[in-house]
Amino acid sequence: MSAPFKYDIVEMSPDEISEERRVFGGLTQSVRELNEASLRTTIDAAEAVEIAAEIEKLTARLQAQQIDGPFGVAITQNGQVRGHGNAVVGLRNPHAVPLHIERSGDGRAWSTFELNGLFEGPPTLVHGGITALILDQVFGEAAADGGHPGMTGTLTLKYRRGTPLGRCSAEAWIDSVEGVKTHVRGEMRDADGNVTVEGHGIFILPRWAREQQAAEATPPQYE
Amino acid sequence: MSAPFKYDIVEMSPDEISEERRVFGGLTQSVRELNEASLRTTIDAAEAVEIAAEIEKLTARLQAQQIDGPFGVAITQNGQVRGHGNAVVGLRNPHAVPLHIERSGDGRAWSTFELNGLFEGPPTLVHGGITALILDQVFGEAAADGGHPGMTGTLTLKYRRGTPLGRCSAEAWIDSVEGVKTHVRGEMRDADGNVTVEGHGIFILPRWAREQQAAEATPPQYE
Repeated sequence: MSAPFKYDIVEMSPDEISEERRVFGGLTQSVRELNEASLRTTIDAAEAVEIAAEIEKLTARLQAQQIDGPFGVAITQNGQVRGHGNAVVGLRNPHAVPLHIERSGDGRAWSTFELNGLFEGPPTLVHGGITALILDQVFGEAAADGGHPGMTGTLTLKYRRGTPLGRCSAEAWIDSVEGVKTHVRGEMRDADGNVTVEGHGIFILPRWAREQQAAEATPPQYE
Repeated sequence: MSAPFKYDIVEMSPDEISEERRVFGGLTQSVRELNEASLRTTIDAAEAVEIAAEIEKLTARLQAQQIDGPFGVAITQNGQVRGHGNAVVGLRNPHAVPLHIERSGDGRAWSTFELNGLFEGPPTLVHGGITALILDQVFGEAAADGGHPGMTGTLTLKYRRGTPLGRCSAEAWIDSVEGVKTHVRGEMRDADGNVTVEGHGIFILPRWAREQQAAEATPPQYE
């Protein structure tokens, strides 16, 4: 990692955070449902063209006031990471499943979630790269949960069998820590509990982030 | 892989395929733009709630007629794969970037594309799992391009540096073929041409698919 990034500090009351979750989390969820409906629809062409025009009007209304670029990550006053733009867990990201990741507090993270046709690769199966995307996130959160947050250094995945779309789960845990390198292991399971993908990752905290972290008390927690 | 899947054969004229691309490709693109606008908007809460209600109405109109489950993959009469639901390249999948992947005809595939905030992990950077998702797809297409289509068996990625959001490219090529295992190598590059992620993958064609393939003349090509 060469380009250090800074986290903005967000000052919001618990009520404001709850209202944001209701309003903008709700907006994002409605967009997620539109995504799936758009993929699966078989309506006629004239209706599809009309709906596309309506969507464009709503896009323009949303764009009336917006941030300049990507969403970024902020930290609340109590040290929680607000990764609301994150491609896997982000409250505000319509692409995010979103995963709600649980943590043990000592280097283990897990989540159960539903993957619909938006995540398809081979027919009826989760795209192999989507399992990689999800495991990368869960691996990183296991590392952070054990007090060793970092960026992905390596990721090695073994695909044991196809993962059917539907209910899935992912779990990861810290295997060992060698200096700045945290070794994480984990797996994806299908609805029947079969392991479909096994993985190993090394997570590394860049130097600039280690210096920043030294000034902070608690490891980051996604809210 | 345990569960074999079958491809539907689609009978459409070139004019019908072109019209489908215009209408439903256009609808999907309008949803992609809504996704980004939803992520970046800073409009007030009342307006956001009103827009969410409008989106829900459009979702209901799209759902008036729809396929039962995931999109699946079909094959045209001339043997082209129609992976329109695919999470990375799918014409009909609003999550897909979508990548337009070029091929050499002898086992090499590449693509240049733009990644916006919907693909963010660390602030201003592409999510490490998104690079894995994209490389998995490009690796698989390189294998198929060399006449060795298969499913991901292993995927090993080394992250050399962060990949800034914006213009990126990915390339992959067959390194060697050992029976049913095709070894692919490849990389992701940032807008300046720096290699940000290097990877290796083994792609394996399940037995049932080998039997099916033996009955066909040409390797699948994404249209």
